[in-house]
Amino acid sequence: MPTILGQNQYGKAENRVVKITRDGATHHIKDLNVSVSLSGDMEEVHYSGSNANVLPTDTTKNTVYAFAKEYGIESAEQFGIHLARHFVTSQEPIHRARIRIEEYAWERIEASDANSRFIGADEVKHSFVRKGQETRLTQITYDGSSWEVISGLKDLVVMNSTNSEFWGYVKDKYTTLKEAYDRILATQVSGRWRFNWTDDDQRMPHWEKSYEQTKKHMLQAFAETYSLSLQQTMYQMGARIIDNRSEIDEVRFSLPNKHHFLVDLEPFGLKNDNEVYYAADRPYGLIEATILRDGCEARIPVDLTNL
Amino acid sequence: MPTILGQNQYGKAENRVVKITRDGATHHIKDLNVSVSLSGDMEEVHYSGSNANVLPTDTTKNTVYAFAKEYGIESAEQFGIHLARHFVTSQEPIHRARIRIEEYAWERIEASDANSRFIGADEVKHSFVRKGQETRLTQITYDGSSWEVISGLKDLVVMNSTNSEFWGYVKDKYTTLKEAYDRILATQVSGRWRFNWTDDDQRMPHWEKSYEQTKKHMLQAFAETYSLSLQQTMYQMGARIIDNRSEIDEVRFSLPNKHHFLVDLEPFGLKNDNEVYYAADRPYGLIEATILRDGCEARIPVDLTNL
Amino acid sequence: MPTILGQNQYGKAENRVVKITRDGATHHIKDLNVSVSLSGDMEEVHYSGSNANVLPTDTTKNTVYAFAKEYGIESAEQFGIHLARHFVTSQEPIHRARIRIEEYAWERIEASDANSRFIGADEVKHSFVRKGQETRLTQITYDGSSWEVISGLKDLVVMNSTNSEFWGYVKDKYTTLKEAYDRILATQVSGRWRFNWTDDDQRMPHWEKSYEQTKKHMLQAFAETYSLSLQQTMYQMGARIIDNRSEIDEVRFSLPNKHHFLVDLEPFGLKNDNEVYYAADRPYGLIEATILRDGCEARIPVDLTNL
Amino acid sequence: MPTILGQNQYGKAENRVVKITRDGATHHIKDLNVSVSLSGDMEEVHYSGSNANVLPTDTTKNTVYAFAKEYGIESAEQFGIHLARHFVTSQEPIHRARIRIEEYAWERIEASDANSRFIGADEVKHSFVRKGQETRLTQITYDGSSWEVISGLKDLVVMNSTNSEFWGYVKDKYTTLKEAYDRILATQVSGRWRFNWTDDDQRMPHWEKSYEQTKKHMLQAFAETYSLSLQQTMYQMGARIIDNRSEIDEVRFSLPNKHHFLVDLEPFGLKNDNEVYYAADRPYGLIEATILRDGCEARIPVDLTNL
Repeated sequence: MPTILGQNQYGKAENRVVKITRDGATHHIKDLNVSVSLSGDMEEVHYSGSNANVLPTDTTKNTVYAFAKEYGIESAEQFGIHLARHFVTSQEPIHRARIRIEEYAWERIEASDANSRFIGADEVKHSFVRKGQETRLTQITYDGSSWEVISGLKDLVVMNSTNSEFWGYVKDKYTTLKEAYDRILATQVSGRWRFNWTDDDQRMPHWEKSYEQTKKHMLQAFAETYSLSLQQTMYQMGARIIDNRSEIDEVRFSLPNKHHFLVDLEPFGLKNDNEVYYAADRPYGLIEATILRDGCEARIPVDLTNL
Repeated sequence: MPTILGQNQYGKAENRVVKITRDGATHHIKDLNVSVSLSGDMEEVHYSGSNANVLPTDTTKNTVYAFAKEYGIESAEQFGIHLARHFVTSQEPIHRARIRIEEYAWERIEASDANSRFIGADEVKHSFVRKGQETRLTQITYDGSSWEVISGLKDLVVMNSTNSEFWGYVKDKYTTLKEAYDRILATQVSGRWRFNWTDDDQRMPHWEKSYEQTKKHMLQAFAETYSLSLQQTMYQMGARIIDNRSEIDEVRFSLPNKHHFLVDLEPFGLKNDNEVYYAADRPYGLIEATILRDGCEARIPVDLTNL
Repeated sequence: MPTILGQNQYGKAENRVVKITRDGATHHIKDLNVSVSLSGDMEEVHYSGSNANVLPTDTTKNTVYAFAKEYGIESAEQFGIHLARHFVTSQEPIHRARIRIEEYAWERIEASDANSRFIGADEVKHSFVRKGQETRLTQITYDGSSWEVISGLKDLVVMNSTNSEFWGYVKDKYTTLKEAYDRILATQVSGRWRFNWTDDDQRMPHWEKSYEQTKKHMLQAFAETYSLSLQQTMYQMGARIIDNRSEIDEVRFSLPNKHHFLVDLEPFGLKNDNEVYYAADRPYGLIEATILRDGCEARIPVDLTNL
Repeated sequence: MPTILGQNQYGKAENRVVKITRDGATHHIKDLNVSVSLSGDMEEVHYSGSNANVLPTDTTKNTVYAFAKEYGIESAEQFGIHLARHFVTSQEPIHRARIRIEEYAWERIEASDANSRFIGADEVKHSFVRKGQETRLTQITYDGSSWEVISGLKDLVVMNSTNSEFWGYVKDKYTTLKEAYDRILATQVSGRWRFNWTDDDQRMPHWEKSYEQTKKHMLQAFAETYSLSLQQTMYQMGARIIDNRSEIDEVRFSLPNKHHFLVDLEPFGLKNDNEVYYAADRPYGLIEATILRDGCEARIPVDLTNL
């Protein structure tokens, strides 16, 4: 046979599961999009079409829903760990499971002031509005012996309206850009961070708190860095995470430079004193890097944060 | 000539303008997407291609940016009023201007605790994260004598995890749906509301406060209505606005019923006690209506809230 | 009660139905996205939540699938007519049905040259590739006595690389645009056309042939008009349809002017002789109009072709 | 310093360039979306913000447009080779350039029959309609000595309405799926293929012909494979390419199993004889694999074909 099979994986993608937990009248919600990807002894299904080793993707979907009941959803990471362990340990031909999860945040709708015409305000504990900011992400990979957990986020749009410059760059025959000493710096963060938890014997990180703190440090580094280039700001965002979160060894960012161009108002006899900007769509600068704890190995794939 | 020209309009759509206002070190941001649409004596450009009455769409774009400097952006509504008035009063062939605006909300990034390695926390007053929830909308129409202002929002996703039933409906030969006595009710609100401000001599509404209060009342009505049908909840949302906001005479909603189906876990020996749901994409119920102050005329086009 | 109910409608949107018809080994495919919208005596469900007059949206979904079997899908228009008639005539409280349909075109995969290792080429009559060009649209409305059929398309992207000019326009203080004597003209057509078939006693148009011919005439008018403005081209597109298709009385277009800006290559010592263009995203001109058969009334809503 | 910089790259993404070539009255069009990504000695810009080694992303944009004039666009691959070579050889700090290109196909609008009222049909050689099917892709990487060219496509939707089965799979406690002996098989192809051209001394493939033939073989393999699983069909698609195109050594696919579920019409007293299907959105099976020429090494990243 002149062709052979290389890396392969399969599963059910984008299982949308919503879990309601009732604490008396107070409800809690977890809203996930779960994708399962399995690999192992799968040559035959590719070569001959024999499904003898294939757990159907429909079954992996059912398992997601069943596990939401059996284990609950404490965090996306913990839920992914339950799933990955199950597939690898319960099916001999499956050697590796990768669970990817998107999580959508919700916040409570605030009750109205005491209003006798309606249900009592203090009873409104089952009503939510989707927060709508970033999408939280995690990817759990298990091969039967060790774990890799890479969490992150996408679509978090941030802007500094000052404290950003760009000058002193290389100029070649195609360079027309003017140097800038006060510009808007804006980006839509796509970031991933890898935990150093790899073994069931290690103490597991507190996934919810870790996410909240990592996002906070990242945002603060973005806000507090006086920027001479988006690369510098990006590096500070990653370094601030590594410095403050001992459970994380590696960070990867893809940061589009969402250009805000100062509009030339001089033809209309107006001076634009860094006030009026045109927010451009395309093209955009795209700045990407891995930031590592010294001594650690890079393992987040370069294409994982792809836009 | 066997064909004639009917309603027509033209302009530049989706002008993305960001306005930064500096109050000392504290910056404020307005982030709009402005679409201009003009009509009037425009037969010739359609029949012969003569542009003698045509103000170029490029000029309408320039005007948006120039006005952001000349008038500032107090609110999307006020900005649209400046633009609409300008086009109708400055160009004789233009008899009507319609300005549509989308607004994206931003919130400040909270500074880190005093941290001597970085810029002082109290100086972080120019850093923002996009709120990312609903998109605020407005549409201003001016014909030289009277105003129509229709504001609203889209993409506001809400959910009640209980207090919703659906039963007692018509059953025909194609009906298979089981009645539900405790279901999730979720929707993605697309709503518009029309102000009764139509004349320069009337006192203008406080647009920012009106938006904030209207959204609040709408959300509370959603949360506080014990629902026997999405139609009933929708009507309450509109009525609550009309009841509480005297500046608004008409509300129009398009509410997709974002189905959350209870997953059947019995095949796995599990009981699903209103805990685990599958969030479906398509098809979805689509519930639409106009709610009016009694005695007022409906003017919001049925297709305006289209998904 | 200070508020009243205005126009309202409900139904199941975006029912994705694929119908395979087998003519021996040769299969045929119809791929539709069907949205049902019903209105009538629906006050109570809004006011009190009583569903006594409400045929569930789930039932309307079931009806779509059942009718695909019972009637087949000869054309989107014919299918919509079956559905609309059914809802209005079978349920007393329903007075009006509007069926919107999107149709996706497929073409056959051409068989390989006789290749003994595979199934015979002449047997490949069940394999399709999605054409992927425009989405065909129709909207059928029935009130129990008369029909309105508005068909059309969206997302058809066209370009003339010459034979387009733009000059002689109004210049005000915000005008900076240079006149153009040879420019690219490109747009993404969103169009609708209304048939004059309104009564069961009239001979029904041949919907498939009508669509094919209407699209052809529209494309040819776009190609063959020497353009002094997009308005002029748009009018010709509509007029060509009215002139050639007696079953159509009214056309409505929303045409974004997809700007292709000539790139200034002079800084690099190069001359751009109408060769290299930057295809911009936003903002874009937006040109909209209704073109009517003389003597006919305009009935397509202005917002129907909204982008 | 506790953190270090790992892999990093930067450049301007999504430069939309349209090139018109005039062959007398006959025009030709190339419509590309070009993304530049550079890496090399870039530590300082991350650590200190010094841009001394940074060619601005704006300059890389200018270069794309200038090269469209200087070299023309013979094919996306050839254009990417010009760009990658330029960046690596002209800037000492840049050691590696990766050019990603999307290409959109256009076809000519057919002229109307001789029609004296319009421009002569034979003159319509500058009018195009976007084909709208798949998006063609290529990625060129150059490190100063050797080339890697990975081409491919995305968003090509295909369907077999029969000749697909799925049975004989593993059943565990979460398995409820019924075996299928005649089902629809549909997918939206995301594929990449790697050329064995790596050296300027080798004869370069004919990129346009290679693409056309590769797509043809892939489609025919999809159509002509009697399928017992999507994995089997996918493998045949890759193997057919490797067998027929000696310039290609490796193929990678990500194939969503676009489920078409047979609708249960029995509640309505109807028999669904493989006629009426519900086209589901999410979740979907996701089947991915690399297919290699025997003896060759896999180099296409697993995440490159990500949906």
